[in-house]
Amino acid sequence: MAAKLIKNGMIVTAADTYAADVLIMEGKIAKIGFGLEAEADEVIDASGKLIFPGGIDPHTHLDMPFGGTVTADDFASGTLAAAFGGTTTIVDFCLTSKGKPLSESIADWHAKASGKAVIDYGFHLMIGEINDDVLAELPVIVKDEGITSLKVFMAYKNVFQADDGTLFRTMLAAKELGAMVMVHAENGDVIEFLIDKALKEGNTEPIYHALTRPSVIEGEATGRAAKLAALAGARLYVVHVTCAEAVQQISEARSLGADVWGETCPQYLVLDQSYLEKPDFEGAKYVWSPPLREAYHQDVLWNALKSGQLQTIGSDHCSFNFDGQKDLGLGDFSKIPNGGPVIEDRLSLLFSEGVKKGRITLNQFVDLTATRNARLFGLFPRKGTIAIGSDADIVIFDPEAERVLSEETHHMNVDYNPFEGMNVTGVPISVLSRGEFVIRDRQFVGAAGTGRYLKRTPYSTVDNTVPAANVKIKL
Amino acid sequence: MAAKLIKNGMIVTAADTYAADVLIMEGKIAKIGFGLEAEADEVIDASGKLIFPGGIDPHTHLDMPFGGTVTADDFASGTLAAAFGGTTTIVDFCLTSKGKPLSESIADWHAKASGKAVIDYGFHLMIGEINDDVLAELPVIVKDEGITSLKVFMAYKNVFQADDGTLFRTMLAAKELGAMVMVHAENGDVIEFLIDKALKEGNTEPIYHALTRPSVIEGEATGRAAKLAALAGARLYVVHVTCAEAVQQISEARSLGADVWGETCPQYLVLDQSYLEKPDFEGAKYVWSPPLREAYHQDVLWNALKSGQLQTIGSDHCSFNFDGQKDLGLGDFSKIPNGGPVIEDRLSLLFSEGVKKGRITLNQFVDLTATRNARLFGLFPRKGTIAIGSDADIVIFDPEAERVLSEETHHMNVDYNPFEGMNVTGVPISVLSRGEFVIRDRQFVGAAGTGRYLKRTPYSTVDNTVPAANVKIKL
Amino acid sequence: MAAKLIKNGMIVTAADTYAADVLIMEGKIAKIGFGLEAEADEVIDASGKLIFPGGIDPHTHLDMPFGGTVTADDFASGTLAAAFGGTTTIVDFCLTSKGKPLSESIADWHAKASGKAVIDYGFHLMIGEINDDVLAELPVIVKDEGITSLKVFMAYKNVFQADDGTLFRTMLAAKELGAMVMVHAENGDVIEFLIDKALKEGNTEPIYHALTRPSVIEGEATGRAAKLAALAGARLYVVHVTCAEAVQQISEARSLGADVWGETCPQYLVLDQSYLEKPDFEGAKYVWSPPLREAYHQDVLWNALKSGQLQTIGSDHCSFNFDGQKDLGLGDFSKIPNGGPVIEDRLSLLFSEGVKKGRITLNQFVDLTATRNARLFGLFPRKGTIAIGSDADIVIFDPEAERVLSEETHHMNVDYNPFEGMNVTGVPISVLSRGEFVIRDRQFVGAAGTGRYLKRTPYSTVDNTVPAANVKIKL
Amino acid sequence: MAAKLIKNGMIVTAADTYAADVLIMEGKIAKIGFGLEAEADEVIDASGKLIFPGGIDPHTHLDMPFGGTVTADDFASGTLAAAFGGTTTIVDFCLTSKGKPLSESIADWHAKASGKAVIDYGFHLMIGEINDDVLAELPVIVKDEGITSLKVFMAYKNVFQADDGTLFRTMLAAKELGAMVMVHAENGDVIEFLIDKALKEGNTEPIYHALTRPSVIEGEATGRAAKLAALAGARLYVVHVTCAEAVQQISEARSLGADVWGETCPQYLVLDQSYLEKPDFEGAKYVWSPPLREAYHQDVLWNALKSGQLQTIGSDHCSFNFDGQKDLGLGDFSKIPNGGPVIEDRLSLLFSEGVKKGRITLNQFVDLTATRNARLFGLFPRKGTIAIGSDADIVIFDPEAERVLSEETHHMNVDYNPFEGMNVTGVPISVLSRGEFVIRDRQFVGAAGTGRYLKRTPYSTVDNTVPAANVKIKL
Repeated sequence: MAAKLIKNGMIVTAADTYAADVLIMEGKIAKIGFGLEAEADEVIDASGKLIFPGGIDPHTHLDMPFGGTVTADDFASGTLAAAFGGTTTIVDFCLTSKGKPLSESIADWHAKASGKAVIDYGFHLMIGEINDDVLAELPVIVKDEGITSLKVFMAYKNVFQADDGTLFRTMLAAKELGAMVMVHAENGDVIEFLIDKALKEGNTEPIYHALTRPSVIEGEATGRAAKLAALAGARLYVVHVTCAEAVQQISEARSLGADVWGETCPQYLVLDQSYLEKPDFEGAKYVWSPPLREAYHQDVLWNALKSGQLQTIGSDHCSFNFDGQKDLGLGDFSKIPNGGPVIEDRLSLLFSEGVKKGRITLNQFVDLTATRNARLFGLFPRKGTIAIGSDADIVIFDPEAERVLSEETHHMNVDYNPFEGMNVTGVPISVLSRGEFVIRDRQFVGAAGTGRYLKRTPYSTVDNTVPAANVKIKL
Repeated sequence: MAAKLIKNGMIVTAADTYAADVLIMEGKIAKIGFGLEAEADEVIDASGKLIFPGGIDPHTHLDMPFGGTVTADDFASGTLAAAFGGTTTIVDFCLTSKGKPLSESIADWHAKASGKAVIDYGFHLMIGEINDDVLAELPVIVKDEGITSLKVFMAYKNVFQADDGTLFRTMLAAKELGAMVMVHAENGDVIEFLIDKALKEGNTEPIYHALTRPSVIEGEATGRAAKLAALAGARLYVVHVTCAEAVQQISEARSLGADVWGETCPQYLVLDQSYLEKPDFEGAKYVWSPPLREAYHQDVLWNALKSGQLQTIGSDHCSFNFDGQKDLGLGDFSKIPNGGPVIEDRLSLLFSEGVKKGRITLNQFVDLTATRNARLFGLFPRKGTIAIGSDADIVIFDPEAERVLSEETHHMNVDYNPFEGMNVTGVPISVLSRGEFVIRDRQFVGAAGTGRYLKRTPYSTVDNTVPAANVKIKL
Repeated sequence: MAAKLIKNGMIVTAADTYAADVLIMEGKIAKIGFGLEAEADEVIDASGKLIFPGGIDPHTHLDMPFGGTVTADDFASGTLAAAFGGTTTIVDFCLTSKGKPLSESIADWHAKASGKAVIDYGFHLMIGEINDDVLAELPVIVKDEGITSLKVFMAYKNVFQADDGTLFRTMLAAKELGAMVMVHAENGDVIEFLIDKALKEGNTEPIYHALTRPSVIEGEATGRAAKLAALAGARLYVVHVTCAEAVQQISEARSLGADVWGETCPQYLVLDQSYLEKPDFEGAKYVWSPPLREAYHQDVLWNALKSGQLQTIGSDHCSFNFDGQKDLGLGDFSKIPNGGPVIEDRLSLLFSEGVKKGRITLNQFVDLTATRNARLFGLFPRKGTIAIGSDADIVIFDPEAERVLSEETHHMNVDYNPFEGMNVTGVPISVLSRGEFVIRDRQFVGAAGTGRYLKRTPYSTVDNTVPAANVKIKL
Repeated sequence: MAAKLIKNGMIVTAADTYAADVLIMEGKIAKIGFGLEAEADEVIDASGKLIFPGGIDPHTHLDMPFGGTVTADDFASGTLAAAFGGTTTIVDFCLTSKGKPLSESIADWHAKASGKAVIDYGFHLMIGEINDDVLAELPVIVKDEGITSLKVFMAYKNVFQADDGTLFRTMLAAKELGAMVMVHAENGDVIEFLIDKALKEGNTEPIYHALTRPSVIEGEATGRAAKLAALAGARLYVVHVTCAEAVQQISEARSLGADVWGETCPQYLVLDQSYLEKPDFEGAKYVWSPPLREAYHQDVLWNALKSGQLQTIGSDHCSFNFDGQKDLGLGDFSKIPNGGPVIEDRLSLLFSEGVKKGRITLNQFVDLTATRNARLFGLFPRKGTIAIGSDADIVIFDPEAERVLSEETHHMNVDYNPFEGMNVTGVPISVLSRGEFVIRDRQFVGAAGTGRYLKRTPYSTVDNTVPAANVKIKL
């Protein structure tokens, strides 16, 4: 494997910003400094570019069945688009079914990804029930399969939703194993009723998707999960936080010492509820759960990122075509498949709206898109940073280049882009995965199937331990 | 200048923990990786050791007159002790007097430090009044002298205390110049009255120092300063936060988007108010302002460090001998010189009580003791990290070695140690400043006067800017 | 019916404290003032006494099956004891069963009370499910039966517990009818698990009743109910609030304009968790749900009463004999019947610990024990005050007399008193119901069956309406 | 003195609403009930009317010098207008000057009121400094003069403003005497600077009055005062609360047990900041301090009244003519005399906007306008309620009549009405002071000089004591 030198760039990590060259050997970062040309087989000029650790998207749904259809992106198109956007690792949600062995669901998910992914990937595992069978499987799954994050839904009544007992037992089991619990925090019981009521009253348009999922019940469920986690002594990660009420709950829990973390997504930072009122059913393109909120929540979310009350950015990528999928909800908003395509534009949106507008720092950008995700999800220090011994997952990023987000140019396999026409500053020019180019000068040069499955480590070994003095990551 | 290689250590930054060797050339970090031996004139073995960026102590008072006496440590003994403790940079408080040109006070402080310091140093500047003369001097001081942090006292009525108008105008002036305002946040008016009242009632023992400075008025002043900073749009740094009430105020301000930061000190994390009740006037050793608090505040402070509500650790080093200085307050607690010796034990205390006990992570330790301080005080990336191009200010730290804190062994020029007898795990073995050993294998090998004055940069250039693509830190 | 004059007393209402005589005619308060002797058939001297409106206990469980046994007090002994304690109205909880018509449960409850009660009474109705049958019955029950408060349990999994959808739908239905929703706010799912876990681990003693119902999950459920009520626009009443966490949730909801109210009970104000650790299984006497809390919660509750964050005092009277009932839980704390005897001592405890110790005012005492309860539960102004036209439900109370609470002297049909040996100041000397003595000079002079069932009015007609100018309550 | 019977009305107190007749003898309420005609010399028919206790306005500025002019209303016109509005007692602010004996200032104020007032009145006393002279005078003033409320200004730098030491010492002195401390809570230092800055920048229009007094610094000062009061153990009353930030501080302090109370005013409930932008300098009519706020604060204030977080309504009546007084500020907003005419319309505004719109209950209306004020200011039970033995200060109020607020019809001696053209429902028809008509069927029938000075009692004797059993208010 040829040694590469990325030269003349500005390295940015969660802590540092400095000019230096990076020598890559055997797919890993071998040396950082200057004067390393002699050791390189190939020199890549990165003058004027930022060198980021590859983005880690902790929240994707590829090739996932939902509401009688299947997401538009599979692991081929999804990871390709991710790579174009500067993401080199995803952690996808493996759904499970009650009564079916967890291992079978995981096997299904491996089958979906295998041979298709162009970047590395891991799986979260949905927990829908806790019983002796599940409890027996979990240690194997966490320790052998390296699936160290378990997802529980507090919404989607009669579909995914688990009750509080299941949530709490999952927390206790996860804690024992060093796994983290993730929650979709909305009160599904109340939502189910509000949806029924809206439909009975003839309110069928997409905007009712938002109106039947008010922010107060996201706040409620978030607080509930956080309190249960505090009681259990478990680590909790709240996915897709959208509103002031939820931020407050996470912040209060953290201030009391609870091990609680929050993620938000680009769509909640730059879009708002009014998009659901677009005419000709176009509002359906903006149906996420939780829904887009009134615009004033955006400031709260930005402040929460800046102050550290929220810690990560995921895409919640879950794409459905407008034609043939979103339109399943014509005449009944509750049948609109939930979700949208964000995997490709996550970094550019955050860089342009966040860093360029002074809302977050450059180092926070890296932490939010890569480093913190690697730490929380057991991928650190293999992924998520630019440091000796880490995988050479690297983005060469032009901070001044501009790009218009559009369905016409994106690489996601879906017929619209929710950010259509938005001009962003900051473009991932080239992207390397384990030292090999996947994207080079905005061209795909990778290959399906080169992405590898990632066994992840329990969180406790990442954060809570002083490395034993004799541990060394050798090349 | 000979090239040095620190070999076999584990590098720890605010973001990363990884094994690699560090090559130092011209006093700066030149390369990181393995296989660098050929380029080194000298190889230092750091097997089993952690390699930290040198500590930055943002809060020291050396050679400072106070209450009719002068602190026991000057820049010679103070910086020597700092170095033994793993600190390679201090920022000391330059006091000023009303009516005296600021430049004269700064000149005085340069005279105190010059020829004595064994590590690098900068100055904060106290602001006691705002008038046309002060406003005329400030741009020169910030931009030419590189003093980018201004300190305002809300306590010490009739001595240092400024009124809210002065504080607010300082904030506005600082904001214009990219300087940060620091506050000592206690309500001096109320304290003055409570002290008078206590003395009149014959309550003269050291414990009354704590009882006349209740936590509620630290919370009050902290909230006041935070709200004024939010209104001014200025950056605020609250020194020596000690209590739940103050943490709450900082956290609330940050969640509303205010640019507010908080420091605490080791003494508030490991000691409590009961120490002031020690017999034979020994309580006087534990007289700090704000005072040590009831023990339950310690958990709040640890949680605040963990969750990011507080961001830095300073020592507030301000040493007075028990014999001849602290005893000025025999029979009148208000005459006990405020402060204590902490500069040497800051890192060991935080490592032992924080990292080793799982309260903070190893990377948080570095951020709290070095990186965040460098960023906030305009020293980054020159100081505060281990990255190519940064000054080779490095601590070789043994995470398993143990040490008993004691006046008998410490290097501070003071006749007691407030942590006397405490066993800590984690010892700075060797310390380099700009690539030269100051401490080597627990022996001082530096020289007075080698420490250099640091001109610091306005905060805006550290945090808020994407580096221009052509900026490069070259060796 | 003879006209009575209560003479020389000090009348106390929720607003007023004044000396005046009260003339009672036809069971109602006819005149207040002086010089009314000529109109009276009988004059009762109340020199040195306070004249309170009779207490209204909004929370009793008489003749109630629970856990395989039945409460020790039925409507005969329970109302007798209530009367001795200065209570002249109770509202008892009518339990229901899924699938059984609500009207049948109500008929059962009428049968329990009829012919036994010595004071007036009303019923709350438990709602365990919402379906078309229930929705069809509710308007009749609220409007014709005068049952204007509906109780939902968030705890007692698989017994009483309703899910959030049921709670929310109950709120919406109640709002339509002007009825109030009451909740037992604890997270039953979590409790069920914690109990199972404790028992599996061999932790069977009474103290585990408290340890398996931590305060954080009372706070959680309280906040959940409050947020759902705010969303529904419904009025919510949280029964038996015990802890700081729950008080905070109620206070926050109220400050946002939610129509949320909170009750606490004497046991939570004067007893604490340590009572459950009494040896020889005596801890079982102190098993309430929610459980007694650590002592620091008491101050929070008192402050909440003083500041108006909590608004009423109920007894949650639910008595079980120690011998033969509480001991069902020997070897398994989860089988200890929950509850205790408080109906008789509610007023004396609140007067002695609250008014006499300066924690609440005399007028707050009346509001907490009578007036606010009358308003919230649709009994006002018939009950709950001393005003012209109101029922002459009156307590002649000696504020200086002392009494020792004890099983030996109490009138409840239960073999222990949880406040055994406590000396209280303030004794109800005589008690009238609709103008007739039930208790006279500490002797029972009433008769079983004289208590009448009270049809209550929807809350909206009590609080939210300016009386039409031509409405007049005529004698 | 002839006995009067008010017949056929609906009596409303802070606790009760009931139909009954009221017999007045010797200026006091002698009997309540029916069938009292024989004892009356005169019968007043109140069919269809509400019978309120006369309003108590705890916050007026009559005949007060301010900014080089004197308020437009003196005790003659001011109390006349008050009476027309249903107010039967005012407590006016007696200003003081540093160095001048307090007794002289009080004598001045007696001179202003004497012979002019048509209703009863008391005085608050401003405290501008604390020294031995002041401390020597205070016991006499509180106990002999019956001035039991002391006002401290945290704003009006260099005019009225006291520092925190003075505020705190006033609290301690007041507490000793059973007096209550009132604060005007805004940060005067910051305001002074913002005003100077605005003027220097040429921003001279009335709207800059609001923009230089942002709500955050009212919140700051409110929190500061509340924390000092908690520390002192003193009772605090925050006048004219206008904003969310201040409400939050009061609520938090109360929840911690602090004895803190808050007043708001009708102008803050129904007007907003946009009024200051009226053209042709008309914005000057709406210059109050604190200023009118953005409209969203109104909901917060209403919720605070409803939930009990704020407890009273004052008028802050401080009238200046638009022509000749307000226009002193043409070209310099800081010279606009602060204040406006509200004394006459306080009750109608609160009734119409509060009770009629369902925001507060009828009984809360009485508590806010009369009863709570009487209690807090040591006038209870003489004033503030309708109970036997209380002064017959009574308003006969038509809850259905409508009235248009206007300078053309009002009785205040000022050339504009800030609520000009507003239609209100609810009109005080007749008003009695100590049993004598002042207003009868909307005609003034009183006489200047009939109002009496009220010596008030320390608060402790109102709220905290159980009346001794032998205390009786005899006619």
